[in-house]
Amino acid sequence: MSSPTDLLAEITTVGADGARGGYSRHVFDRSEHELREWFTGQAEKRGLQVTTDRNANVWAWWGEPAPDAVVTGSHLDSVPGGGAFDGPLGVACSLTAIDLLRAEGFEPSRPVAVSVFAEEEGSRFGVPCLGSRLLTGAIDPDVARDLRDPDGVTFAEAMRSSGLAPDHVGRDDESLGRIGQFVELHVEQGRGLVDLDRSVAVASSILAHGRWRFRFRGQGNHAGATLMDDRSDPMLPAAQLVSATRRAAFTRDGSRATVGRLVPTPGGTNVIASTVDVWLDARSEHGEHVGEIVGELTEVAQQIAVDEGCTVQVSEESYTPTVSFEAGFRDDLSGLLDAPTLPTGAGHDAGVLAATTPTAMLFVRNPTGISHAPDEFAEAGDCLDGTRALARTLRHLAA
Amino acid sequence: MSSPTDLLAEITTVGADGARGGYSRHVFDRSEHELREWFTGQAEKRGLQVTTDRNANVWAWWGEPAPDAVVTGSHLDSVPGGGAFDGPLGVACSLTAIDLLRAEGFEPSRPVAVSVFAEEEGSRFGVPCLGSRLLTGAIDPDVARDLRDPDGVTFAEAMRSSGLAPDHVGRDDESLGRIGQFVELHVEQGRGLVDLDRSVAVASSILAHGRWRFRFRGQGNHAGATLMDDRSDPMLPAAQLVSATRRAAFTRDGSRATVGRLVPTPGGTNVIASTVDVWLDARSEHGEHVGEIVGELTEVAQQIAVDEGCTVQVSEESYTPTVSFEAGFRDDLSGLLDAPTLPTGAGHDAGVLAATTPTAMLFVRNPTGISHAPDEFAEAGDCLDGTRALARTLRHLAA
Repeated sequence: MSSPTDLLAEITTVGADGARGGYSRHVFDRSEHELREWFTGQAEKRGLQVTTDRNANVWAWWGEPAPDAVVTGSHLDSVPGGGAFDGPLGVACSLTAIDLLRAEGFEPSRPVAVSVFAEEEGSRFGVPCLGSRLLTGAIDPDVARDLRDPDGVTFAEAMRSSGLAPDHVGRDDESLGRIGQFVELHVEQGRGLVDLDRSVAVASSILAHGRWRFRFRGQGNHAGATLMDDRSDPMLPAAQLVSATRRAAFTRDGSRATVGRLVPTPGGTNVIASTVDVWLDARSEHGEHVGEIVGELTEVAQQIAVDEGCTVQVSEESYTPTVSFEAGFRDDLSGLLDAPTLPTGAGHDAGVLAATTPTAMLFVRNPTGISHAPDEFAEAGDCLDGTRALARTLRHLAA
Repeated sequence: MSSPTDLLAEITTVGADGARGGYSRHVFDRSEHELREWFTGQAEKRGLQVTTDRNANVWAWWGEPAPDAVVTGSHLDSVPGGGAFDGPLGVACSLTAIDLLRAEGFEPSRPVAVSVFAEEEGSRFGVPCLGSRLLTGAIDPDVARDLRDPDGVTFAEAMRSSGLAPDHVGRDDESLGRIGQFVELHVEQGRGLVDLDRSVAVASSILAHGRWRFRFRGQGNHAGATLMDDRSDPMLPAAQLVSATRRAAFTRDGSRATVGRLVPTPGGTNVIASTVDVWLDARSEHGEHVGEIVGELTEVAQQIAVDEGCTVQVSEESYTPTVSFEAGFRDDLSGLLDAPTLPTGAGHDAGVLAATTPTAMLFVRNPTGISHAPDEFAEAGDCLDGTRALARTLRHLAA
């Protein structure tokens, strides 16, 4: 029987990012296709029946696909230069939990499935949890089809290039109806379990979070020949927005605001930019604070854009309100596993599914708390504890 | 006989940048190879003998290559999303000036050559005027060979991929010895000629200018799960440096400082960056001010990096002191062409060659002054005036 760490070891070279470190695995790129094939191979080796739904999510079935199944799983894509565990650990623990249950001779009374959701990070098309949002109808199919990657390729075009039919994306009641309960296991993205000296926790809630793009437009020009007084340089308001972002989060309890992506166009050293795009990631334990942060920054951006002779356009790319996982389900698992409960600042497909389905999450300890970076880590023993906790959960639910 | 505008019309689709607008033509990329082939075709059509020197610069000879030639030319590469005239106009006017002289029955008493210098913009390998710097020995060949493009490809590797031998780059006395005088025609990158209501000027000087990279390093992490207090986010000092850059230039008479290129790594929306690279372009009418600006910004960067729990490393990518073109040559041409003289804030191969060779420049009017942007423009009539002025100059020098 493989351990989850053994399974992860099989994909250590897939999508390794030589420039950034870590992994860059984005929906429908070569590495993500390779991971889909790897998952299919692992599932078929276990005699699980593999299907891809209308929204590019992959399912592996122990038993015939049918309503009221117990579903577990996560995702295989990454942020640019991400870690090895965010996503793949949940998939590896799902497969090895099935191995463990079978080794124990367990025969589920309901179908069990492992799901792999598409574009969880939103790293290519900007909207995180795109696969689960489409599945549950949380995003308009037309909006999703028209999302563009940094090269201008639409989600619809990328689906077609992968042999999938974009005409059929959108809420999928047949697939949704099959999910009796959903449990996602994930590496913790914080140090809650380190502080508690425990290896596994049950999730209590996910912070309200969203993404906004601020597009500053000025006048592209020559960096040497254009006098300082004659400029409309969008890099200046963009930089001021970055500084304002931190102030906006610091003044609001339990809030976080980040600019991790900023793209000047054309981006030449000797060129005053014509456009600078700044992406804001804002989250808070208090949902209303997210709106306040975005409102405050929109006002600031408009003022500083005018001051610099530029314009700014603000657009929401995604927003997910606070998710409190169903208390009964959470407490049931917490008791079953004798595990503490912890909130998280990270978004997950489980957070999207929670709107339509009884949903829970398990976290596995992360010794440094670092995530979305090459240093992300979980000890092999803790990963195995994750498999055991997940197996026990599935046995409990599918008994 | 073709006009310069006719020649430019032949290359309007080469390297057109759909995403940024304008043109992205970088040394040894597909479009730049296409432009080299186009130039070779144009030269051969005119019976000019084409050679490529050890430093990837191309030469087209009217008469046998020999010492004390009259050389004119410019470059064919662009900044990312640059205009149609910066570089190619000088090449097009050179070729059409030869056409004009031949149509007039002129027979030069000295060889005349058209040169196309490699990587003038430094858009791929970071060092502007790389071809002319190598030719004149202004950059160490080992340093040049090791320059890397954004994908990590070295200049040596890129040369090899283009069938050129990087072992032989560096000061080329044979090629240099052939240049008796050098005259570069260029679109003006400012509104000097508009203000004077004239179509052509002679250059007086080039501002001292250089490029520096500030690399801020922090700790990459999850944008949602990492508390504001727990961060070492290099985007914050990078943004403060952008704001400080403008202040540093504004407080120094005749100075310009620009950040047009800023790259966070890994660059995900939901990821705190681990590294942010900021490129500073600094120039001044007073050479000592450039050093002061860089010194002040280096101090500021070190302080703000420490304040944010980050580090910063500052490296000079290139520096060219003030170039005053030879007064006798300048006044000779200004008298010959009855043209005003104008300084420029833009760097040019002529500025590099001025250190070793009698050198002059002609500027052609740019109605908006905009350059390094898709809006860069010159009227067809003014371009033709440029050809006429250049032809007159060549006739005068090669009589």
